[in-house]
Amino acid sequence: MSAAKFIVIEGLEGAGKSSAVAVVKDWIERQGHDLVCTREPGGTPMAEALRDCVKGHWQETVTAEAELMIMYAARVQLLENVIKPALANGQWVLGDRHDLSSRAYQGGGRELPDAMLDSLRHISLKGFEPDLTLYLDIDPAIGLQRARQRGDLDRIEQQQIDFFNRTRARYLALAGQDDKIVTIDASQPMDEVHQAIRGVLETRYL
Amino acid sequence: MSAAKFIVIEGLEGAGKSSAVAVVKDWIERQGHDLVCTREPGGTPMAEALRDCVKGHWQETVTAEAELMIMYAARVQLLENVIKPALANGQWVLGDRHDLSSRAYQGGGRELPDAMLDSLRHISLKGFEPDLTLYLDIDPAIGLQRARQRGDLDRIEQQQIDFFNRTRARYLALAGQDDKIVTIDASQPMDEVHQAIRGVLETRYL
Repeated sequence: MSAAKFIVIEGLEGAGKSSAVAVVKDWIERQGHDLVCTREPGGTPMAEALRDCVKGHWQETVTAEAELMIMYAARVQLLENVIKPALANGQWVLGDRHDLSSRAYQGGGRELPDAMLDSLRHISLKGFEPDLTLYLDIDPAIGLQRARQRGDLDRIEQQQIDFFNRTRARYLALAGQDDKIVTIDASQPMDEVHQAIRGVLETRYL
Repeated sequence: MSAAKFIVIEGLEGAGKSSAVAVVKDWIERQGHDLVCTREPGGTPMAEALRDCVKGHWQETVTAEAELMIMYAARVQLLENVIKPALANGQWVLGDRHDLSSRAYQGGGRELPDAMLDSLRHISLKGFEPDLTLYLDIDPAIGLQRARQRGDLDRIEQQQIDFFNRTRARYLALAGQDDKIVTIDASQPMDEVHQAIRGVLETRYL
């Protein structure tokens, strides 16, 4: 039996992450693997409290540095208390966002320096990385329109379009450098997106 | 008129920080300076939420890395939203704990590597430091006895005595390297501690 895998779904708001998570979940369970589903920031009681903190609307300015450190604090809690124990126990783990989100949103969108991101990644993850990341690529103008139709946007989702254009550019750049990140064209009809996702899973894990 | 100063009170639980804060507050106000009092972690609405998070009792393991990043996230919020604006406005700032606490508790007590602390300090503070830190030095056995008499201890205050011995040793080591940190013997009678504090302030700022 092959070792348990950590698979992550990534993308901008409105890219279709939730339905992609459902497709991957279904695929993994059909293969007979035990599965733990997570989301970031969050996934443990303490990390969910940090999620509320970082996504909340505050009267004060939320500094980019605090936002970044809170994201990594939540990530360490999830990694050490949920992801690593599950994998060690033979369970597959499916994440709705992980480290690539910080590199794209805080590194690309917020334009924080690479060295800052690298320091926090090293402190928090110590080299740990997902086996596979599926990045759902969408034009921010289309994605945000979809997200707005769902209702209220949180603090980060209320950024200007330039922020999301920078975030998308960083996602694409990072995906282009790493063969563990697969870019899926999320502007296709949903059926085709889902078929593409299943195709990647079959190629890698059947 | 001299520039506004940022003065910090530091020390282990039970060292007498609260009454020292009152003494310094009284002294600064007698000199006719406007004063803003802060505490760490905390001092802004978001930073207080982070304080609750890091000091809370959780069912999950709280990793030393998450604890450290939350402390620095709260610190950036306070620094950028309260401390720097107050100083720029000519107000003195009096802090109940600041960066030295992280270096002593997380660096000394938790034994996190210096490089990790240095990275986070650089990300968060970018060279900013207090004008004066008064470190109230006490044997942890005595300090904790005093703290226990006050009531419930929070998650960090419930560490073993070795943790506090390492924290104290780091406080003393850092104080010995930096003439902006003055060590006060907090095992003396309270009147003498307070007189020593006033003596430092008079020497530096009269």
